[in-house]
Amino acid sequence: MNNDVKAKWEAFTELVRKITAYNEAISLMHWDLRTGAPRKGVELRSGVIGTLSAEQFKLRVSDEMGEYIDYFTRPEVDGQLDDTARRIVKECKKDYDENKRIPAKKIEEFSVLSAHTQTIWEEAKANNDFASFEPNLVKIVDLLKEFIGYWGVKGTTYDTLLDKYEPELTVAKLDEVFGRLRERLVPLVAAIQASPNKPDTTFLDQIFEQEQQEKMGLFILGQMGYDFDAGRLDESVHPFAIGLNSGDVRITTHYLQDDVTSALFSSLHEGGHALYEQNISKDLAGTPLATGTSMGIHESQSRLWENIIGRSRAFWERYYPDLQKHFPQQLQDVSLDDFYRAVNRVENSLIRIESDELTYNLHIIIRYEIEKMIFNEGLEVKDLPKVWNEKYRQYLGITPPNDSLGVLQDVHWSGGDFGYFASYSLGNMYAAQIMNTMKKELPELDQYIREGNLIPIKEWLTEKIYRFGKSRTPAEIIMQVTGEELNPDYLADYLEEKYKEIYKL
Amino acid sequence: MNNDVKAKWEAFTELVRKITAYNEAISLMHWDLRTGAPRKGVELRSGVIGTLSAEQFKLRVSDEMGEYIDYFTRPEVDGQLDDTARRIVKECKKDYDENKRIPAKKIEEFSVLSAHTQTIWEEAKANNDFASFEPNLVKIVDLLKEFIGYWGVKGTTYDTLLDKYEPELTVAKLDEVFGRLRERLVPLVAAIQASPNKPDTTFLDQIFEQEQQEKMGLFILGQMGYDFDAGRLDESVHPFAIGLNSGDVRITTHYLQDDVTSALFSSLHEGGHALYEQNISKDLAGTPLATGTSMGIHESQSRLWENIIGRSRAFWERYYPDLQKHFPQQLQDVSLDDFYRAVNRVENSLIRIESDELTYNLHIIIRYEIEKMIFNEGLEVKDLPKVWNEKYRQYLGITPPNDSLGVLQDVHWSGGDFGYFASYSLGNMYAAQIMNTMKKELPELDQYIREGNLIPIKEWLTEKIYRFGKSRTPAEIIMQVTGEELNPDYLADYLEEKYKEIYKL
Ligand SMILES: [Zn+2]
Ligand SMILES: [Zn+2]
Repeated sequence: MNNDVKAKWEAFTELVRKITAYNEAISLMHWDLRTGAPRKGVELRSGVIGTLSAEQFKLRVSDEMGEYIDYFTRPEVDGQLDDTARRIVKECKKDYDENKRIPAKKIEEFSVLSAHTQTIWEEAKANNDFASFEPNLVKIVDLLKEFIGYWGVKGTTYDTLLDKYEPELTVAKLDEVFGRLRERLVPLVAAIQASPNKPDTTFLDQIFEQEQQEKMGLFILGQMGYDFDAGRLDESVHPFAIGLNSGDVRITTHYLQDDVTSALFSSLHEGGHALYEQNISKDLAGTPLATGTSMGIHESQSRLWENIIGRSRAFWERYYPDLQKHFPQQLQDVSLDDFYRAVNRVENSLIRIESDELTYNLHIIIRYEIEKMIFNEGLEVKDLPKVWNEKYRQYLGITPPNDSLGVLQDVHWSGGDFGYFASYSLGNMYAAQIMNTMKKELPELDQYIREGNLIPIKEWLTEKIYRFGKSRTPAEIIMQVTGEELNPDYLADYLEEKYKEIYKL
Repeated sequence: MNNDVKAKWEAFTELVRKITAYNEAISLMHWDLRTGAPRKGVELRSGVIGTLSAEQFKLRVSDEMGEYIDYFTRPEVDGQLDDTARRIVKECKKDYDENKRIPAKKIEEFSVLSAHTQTIWEEAKANNDFASFEPNLVKIVDLLKEFIGYWGVKGTTYDTLLDKYEPELTVAKLDEVFGRLRERLVPLVAAIQASPNKPDTTFLDQIFEQEQQEKMGLFILGQMGYDFDAGRLDESVHPFAIGLNSGDVRITTHYLQDDVTSALFSSLHEGGHALYEQNISKDLAGTPLATGTSMGIHESQSRLWENIIGRSRAFWERYYPDLQKHFPQQLQDVSLDDFYRAVNRVENSLIRIESDELTYNLHIIIRYEIEKMIFNEGLEVKDLPKVWNEKYRQYLGITPPNDSLGVLQDVHWSGGDFGYFASYSLGNMYAAQIMNTMKKELPELDQYIREGNLIPIKEWLTEKIYRFGKSRTPAEIIMQVTGEELNPDYLADYLEEKYKEIYKL
């Protein structure tokens, strides 16, 4: 960089650091609201979050920001930037463009509409009344289509929404991978359905003392390499992980006395998210690159730990005796094999969030296909229940008895989060593909897991994925780690192999 | 208000609300740092606090703020404001003037210097080396004198510093009340020293299980009327209370296994601070008036609950049986009278923060007299140890064996907080004077306390003090509640009566 560029760059990073500082304060307020802020302070606190968000928003779309972006994207200046610097500019530009192109009035309108629609959705779901939800959902879809117009269509209309959560992902690519995945999973699910060899899960219906659950959860998190000096574990209604900075990545869990697996696997899941954020390179602190590169890659890390490792036989060979020690009364007569099979039972359920590792993907594919139909193929909102139920019948062999258990089950659409669902299955596919490479590069992997030596896994993931934060795109990460593009066969292979054995197909 | 004034007022309160929002976010970050934020995130978090404080500072001294103040203090506009509005303007103006008059470079210099000097002070205290601390303390005093020049001297030089913590308090007034207090307390302390009737405190040297201490502390807070739906209790190294908003006023405590009184009385103390903040009128939310009116009045509330109520015989008549139930082994053979006398033992100690309710005031008077000598009478920093030791000998009859236990004991001066100490004793005097009125207006007060019926006390204080927040000055509050100015005789009377009985003088 010459001196002019250098001086400008320093001023620009100062602005960027400021924007990041707001993120950290706002995230802490959200964390606090969800982990124990007193009820009577919530209303004023929400106002404070709104005020600080608005202050931050002003900086993100400020003329100052616009001028920096303009300056740093000039060819003669861009040429002087290193790769990381260029990515920082790109991130700021993406955010600036996304927000600046839409009239402030429209952004306001969307935020009011989506908040209101979430309330309406709650009632509609409680009353099994899709019709009362429909008019607002129509408005949300229309407004999003208008936004896409402002943003500029990338490929197809729906591509623009996908790109928000998974940068550079396209319908063309997703059609291919989800199509292939569906082809392979639908018959597998049907075969499992028909299998007489179902795991016995009755022993899970017991009381498991919370105190012991806590101890076991903390133990497992420590084993994974979660750094308690750079985080803390609290309780909240819904478990989550939140990165305030790379030295402060918090997770929460929720204990259910009558379900020992809930807190256990959610700790592995949120722990996976947290390992990612804790191990992002410190060099990226204070920049928009100090976070996971996409929803999909983030989810690949939670699901790799929760499912591929956490529901593997090798893992429980090591940790099941510990679990038995924590719950001798409940588990002393349950064999490792029975436990392993029980935590991997497959059930064709109606509800996505209650579904297992295998059928989960079909729930997502259904949502993807429907969202695409809405934005690319003119499907009308009023026809959603019909399409929804038909797809559940086709892919999962079950038909929702009502809309509350069907099209009304998820909160996402009421908040305008179209394009988001795909991330969950992307996470599963990325995870299986990454795991396939990890096994080749760490030939002793299975042995490590069987011995509870999980740190090499964390280190390998840090080296290959975590440290880069958002300075690589998801496609770059997956190519760099595995040497090929996203390929759904790794997930399908993994699931087939695992479940054919469990269900003795 | 006419329409012009009204429109301006709405825009102005918007700015004020924004400034308040930053306070809440910054306070939450401080609370978090002191109650369990992970160690590795602290450095970045401190940066975030700095960034947001700087953003807020810009608003507080902005041209926009200057124009509003200018507008609302014009006689024709001021005449249209109600009392509360006028006070809001006055608060903003005070803050604006204080900060705007000093060149930004000087403020920066002071903040760097005081941070640095605190580190030096820590080392000096550890090494009993006043000489290493002296040059920096000289710089701090000089810079403060310069600031006072910018701010404009009010009465004497030192008055300007007093006014920062206790608005409108003067050296003339404090000389009078501290002089009178000293006259009455020094002989009382000497008589106690000479008394053969010392309380037996040996039974306090036992182990008191933390779990039971927690239960007892929560119980007492509930009895006081602390609203757990508008607050929460956590642990921290040093106990504190912090008001994020009136619906979220948090307190912390610190449990010592070998000292049952520490957490107990600190809960009463911080609980008193918290009751004040929880009961400020909701109408003041989002304004600079939604906090305690001064350090002194705030401290009066903590000390009223901790000492005047919490160390009274009536209080323990009600609650000692509960304490015994929590610690049957430790206390079953200790009589109420022995317990009451033990928690009211007087000891002439060298250390302010370890001192009792009575001698505490002498520690403060010493500091007040020395600060006044520095700023009004040309006392040189190098002579502080000599003056300090001489005053301890005179008022408390003991001489510090070294500066670590003497002039170096408090952190305040290293951070530039001259003028602050007086608040602590003001709190004691205000508390005794307020209690005197409360007894007249609630003739059954003693009976209430004896029955554990503490809510009428909270309600009376809310009606008389809490709800007004900062919309009354300390002098107005004390006049409005008690019908006279600050009068030290109430504290002296209270202490004489109480301790003559305990020490059988
Ligand atoms: Zn997740
Ligand atoms: Zn206090």
